[in-house]
Amino acid sequence: MNQTTENLSVDKLLADLENHIQRHHYGASPKELYEPISYIMSLGGKRIRPLLALMAYSLYKDNYQDILSPAAAVEVFHNFTLMHDDIMDDAPLRRGQATVHEKWNANTAILSGDVMLVKAYDMLLDISSDKLPVALSLFNQTAAEVCEGQQHDMNFERMDHVTDVAYIDMIRQKTAVLLGFSLQLGGLLADATPQEVQKLYDFGVNIGIGFQLKDDLLDVYADKAKFGKQVGGDIIANKKTYLLIKAKELATGAQWEQLESWLAKKAFDKEEKVKAVTAIYDQLGIKALTEAKMHEYFQQGFEQLKSLKVPNSVNFEILLKLTEDLVNREK
Amino acid sequence: MNQTTENLSVDKLLADLENHIQRHHYGASPKELYEPISYIMSLGGKRIRPLLALMAYSLYKDNYQDILSPAAAVEVFHNFTLMHDDIMDDAPLRRGQATVHEKWNANTAILSGDVMLVKAYDMLLDISSDKLPVALSLFNQTAAEVCEGQQHDMNFERMDHVTDVAYIDMIRQKTAVLLGFSLQLGGLLADATPQEVQKLYDFGVNIGIGFQLKDDLLDVYADKAKFGKQVGGDIIANKKTYLLIKAKELATGAQWEQLESWLAKKAFDKEEKVKAVTAIYDQLGIKALTEAKMHEYFQQGFEQLKSLKVPNSVNFEILLKLTEDLVNREK
Repeated sequence: MNQTTENLSVDKLLADLENHIQRHHYGASPKELYEPISYIMSLGGKRIRPLLALMAYSLYKDNYQDILSPAAAVEVFHNFTLMHDDIMDDAPLRRGQATVHEKWNANTAILSGDVMLVKAYDMLLDISSDKLPVALSLFNQTAAEVCEGQQHDMNFERMDHVTDVAYIDMIRQKTAVLLGFSLQLGGLLADATPQEVQKLYDFGVNIGIGFQLKDDLLDVYADKAKFGKQVGGDIIANKKTYLLIKAKELATGAQWEQLESWLAKKAFDKEEKVKAVTAIYDQLGIKALTEAKMHEYFQQGFEQLKSLKVPNSVNFEILLKLTEDLVNREK
Repeated sequence: MNQTTENLSVDKLLADLENHIQRHHYGASPKELYEPISYIMSLGGKRIRPLLALMAYSLYKDNYQDILSPAAAVEVFHNFTLMHDDIMDDAPLRRGQATVHEKWNANTAILSGDVMLVKAYDMLLDISSDKLPVALSLFNQTAAEVCEGQQHDMNFERMDHVTDVAYIDMIRQKTAVLLGFSLQLGGLLADATPQEVQKLYDFGVNIGIGFQLKDDLLDVYADKAKFGKQVGGDIIANKKTYLLIKAKELATGAQWEQLESWLAKKAFDKEEKVKAVTAIYDQLGIKALTEAKMHEYFQQGFEQLKSLKVPNSVNFEILLKLTEDLVNREK
């Protein structure tokens, strides 16, 4: 294994990545097809997936610049899923801006998304031919799982009863496996051993599940002053988060009736509903219970990470710090 | 180049292909995601694209069985485009059966289509790793062009003036390049020379454009007894076919006014409109003019085909006969 000599600057890495993403030529004509791609890719976001790919690579090798295209491909794929999910969820806003189907129309969002997926595959072709079949096979499996997760999520909306186990498996597919793949890809391209690559994947999947549980928690328990969006949005929308699923499982008697009554109400004062459902969560100890489950996944993830045998220990500390910051974020 | 020893049986080849398509495991759970794939793949169709891939391969090599997966991938991709196009075109029927978005819903058709595209890529991974990067790069270019063609087609619906040149470029992208790619893929996988592979592609693109012009013609001039669907459907829908584009270009005076008046009418007797617009086409010689353009493309295509230097002359005659039958079809 190569001894890496350069230590990462995350700011430099993010700047290089952003530059690569913005300069990539997705296509020009017809503009109705390609403008939505530039638009959604310019809305920003934390670029966490390609960042993890580049950082995993940098645990073993220098010159992350060599894999900017495949790393960016993961971000293009992620944004493709957002473009199509936003149609399916009838979402008006994405990162505070109009969604593609709102700004253009649903047909444009369908077709631009399709060509984005093709472009993501095209960016993956930058991978050397000896690693390409394995990388694409893993990507295909991940991409199919992401679609499966989205379908399960839509199915859950129509189901009365969803178990916590089914919910965690859904978020694993819908969001966590792509974080796992990002890290796996970085390790694979850096010639890490299969054991190391598997640990990187498991680390990503576990923290990915933890991050989604954190999202579920923040939606209810975030500090209003620090949280970017409305606290209680999931409660208002009856979204089947881990919190609601556990509350429905644990509530009995009058509590259960109150909860079901709030879920059934068509007209209500939003603030009042958020307050009432949060009170039920509090009585049931849902916060502590969700935090415990979240920490279970974070702990499993960090155990995998810490069992890696990487040549660049400084970059390892940088990756550890970055993910710990994500674990501790308050918005 | 290998001397091929086996001659094709098209019936055997189609049976093997169909068997491969129907036995392929696309996925199981959630069923909402995978049942629409089995459904659309079971609706049939001529399987012309994978058939051309297998026949192009058989010009140079035996054992087309070795490339059934990549050939079937092209059919899966084609059906993915149909699933998404049908949403965009709000089409109720596909091959006489309910479209996926009608039988399920638009969200399911979006997401099943997405996973179909992923599965098409996965089937292409059956290609040997030395040829995979080139094959995928050509496929990506083709797939993007197909999307571009669909977007142009949608744009044309909202445009008052479309030129014949722009129309032919649209049908080249939307339908012809995939026929070109199918033949190109077959040649590439059979180790044909780059020159031969290019000729196969050009043959496919040219006959593909010819086939679409033939479709445009049949919609108006097909024998009602032999044609499977309503004659004049394009006229009723004001579809900007090559015939209408040329008629709008050539009509003058009273003819022009009559044509524009029929195009502007919101309420009309369908049979009367078909009769009237067809009469204008007849006065302008649109049929002969479209046939001339169609034959130009067929001739260019067959010139490319006939300039191939293939080891298996019997299989060459079989491919020639098959495409000639498609050229001469009456429905």
